[in-house]
Amino acid sequence: MSKNLFKFDIKTEKAQQMIDITHLLRQAIEQSEIREGIAVVYCPHTTAGLTINENGDPDVVRDIIEALNRVFPVNASYRHFEGNSHAHIKSSLVGVEKNIIISEGKPVLGTWQSLYFCEFDGPRRRNLFIKIIEMK
Amino acid sequence: MSKNLFKFDIKTEKAQQMIDITHLLRQAIEQSEIREGIAVVYCPHTTAGLTINENGDPDVVRDIIEALNRVFPVNASYRHFEGNSHAHIKSSLVGVEKNIIISEGKPVLGTWQSLYFCEFDGPRRRNLFIKIIEMK
Amino acid sequence: MSKNLFKFDIKTEKAQQMIDITHLLRQAIEQSEIREGIAVVYCPHTTAGLTINENGDPDVVRDIIEALNRVFPVNASYRHFEGNSHAHIKSSLVGVEKNIIISEGKPVLGTWQSLYFCEFDGPRRRNLFIKIIEMK
Repeated sequence: MSKNLFKFDIKTEKAQQMIDITHLLRQAIEQSEIREGIAVVYCPHTTAGLTINENGDPDVVRDIIEALNRVFPVNASYRHFEGNSHAHIKSSLVGVEKNIIISEGKPVLGTWQSLYFCEFDGPRRRNLFIKIIEMK
Repeated sequence: MSKNLFKFDIKTEKAQQMIDITHLLRQAIEQSEIREGIAVVYCPHTTAGLTINENGDPDVVRDIIEALNRVFPVNASYRHFEGNSHAHIKSSLVGVEKNIIISEGKPVLGTWQSLYFCEFDGPRRRNLFIKIIEMK
Repeated sequence: MSKNLFKFDIKTEKAQQMIDITHLLRQAIEQSEIREGIAVVYCPHTTAGLTINENGDPDVVRDIIEALNRVFPVNASYRHFEGNSHAHIKSSLVGVEKNIIISEGKPVLGTWQSLYFCEFDGPRRRNLFIKIIEMK
């Protein structure tokens, strides 16, 4: 692997869960020693995803999970035999890749923003990739 | 800040609003003097977002706002005490970061595409970042 | 056009359809001869989009299309005169741009992941752009 590509293991603990992974983003940026550029964060799974949202009140990410469940129920009538179509749909809606700007060696996030790994069909062992691109 | 990172102020005027910000994207690309590469556009807020959609008929972006309100109502039963969970959910669904290809000094957009700042909990003063990455 | 920007024609054959375009991504990466970096994939249309999801069971992408139709029906009450607002909404939700990491000359995709072009208002002739960015 390239010296600017980082791989992390994530262990999820619930069927559906938002895990704050902002510290992994900061760690990859620090290890790359790149101070200006972008970080491309990538989830290589089809029943999980990534999102950027509020870290102040943990009820916000709970509300996101519950609202998605109301609209795309776990037990609706789906064709896919594994019974986790709801998780595939949520993955396509929040997305599996996020770009974050790096300035002065730090991610450019808003005051209340954290990067979350979204587990929609856990618990499982998951992977995460972060690629750092330099541009002064 | 790096010479290829641009920050803009945006003043939204309604509770929910789509604001065409394609001119800010063009401005950042021109000021960078980079002719081939990508632009990473980033919204540092958790109750707003970014989307790329039609600019021909303004009813399209109105339909997007109304459809999202039908599915994720402003006044549903949410946990988050601030009462704006609908806006956090919409932010996670449209996303807060978009990548646009730059070719010959211009954004590669479709004929009918514009870049929109999506206000879901306004009116407010908001920020926007654009990072330009060169690749010939 | 830059030597690292690739344009493809896609012919969709149904009103709504997910077309696996992972081979176009691999082709662009190979032609660029870039072994480490990212690929920015871009759909220049407002009633189509891109998503990354499962390729093992074709019922998964059928379930995604059906679930989106249940929530954002083709024939709901919309303002836009062309009658395809459902397609614009779906385009904003799955998004029109995706970033994929390149390592050792190959896209870093999960075992079950493919890149899909999402037609929401076809059949039509569509375009696709892929820009390759190098970062060792």
